Amino acid sequence: MKFIAHINIMPLKELLDPQGKAVNNSLHNLGLTSVHNVRIGKHITMELEAADKDQAAAKTSEACKKLLANQVMESFDFTITEA
Amino acid sequence: MKFIAHINIMPLKELLDPQGKAVNNSLHNLGLTSVHNVRIGKHITMELEAADKDQAAAKTSEACKKLLANQVMESFDFTITEA
Repeated sequence: MKFIAHINIMPLKELLDPQGKAVNNSLHNLGLTSVHNVRIGKHITMELEAADKDQAAAKTSEACKKLLANQVMESFDFTITEA
Repeated sequence: MKFIAHINIMPLKELLDPQGKAVNNSLHNLGLTSVHNVRIGKHITMELEAADKDQAAAKTSEACKKLLANQVMESFDFTITEA
């Protein structure tokens, strides 16, 4: 079966996010002053073949741990949907 | 009220995504050969003050259009949750 993994990789809460801070300030300059605590990470989608949803989740988790996320600085979560 | 916006910004389907292609090949090299069509975009979270959910959505949409997404090359979608 074909599945689609939707992965979010975000900088850990404990760490500064300079890119998010810069965007926060830019939004304030554009007049959107009610915005706070902007954090910027990655969103990754990928298609994968797997026998069932659990196997797809296991493969996605492996991909995140081995390559996609740097777990020293980033956390990841994902959802799996059928393609 | 406080809301949190969860924004996904992805390259348009019609466009090549070289970063995604590179990650796709790297995943194959790591043995995850069942993975295809990797696409990489941005995931942004931000807190915002608004009177209600509709107003929060309007502000988030404005932020995406004015600054966060380049609509020539990227599409965006978001969900709003209460903080």
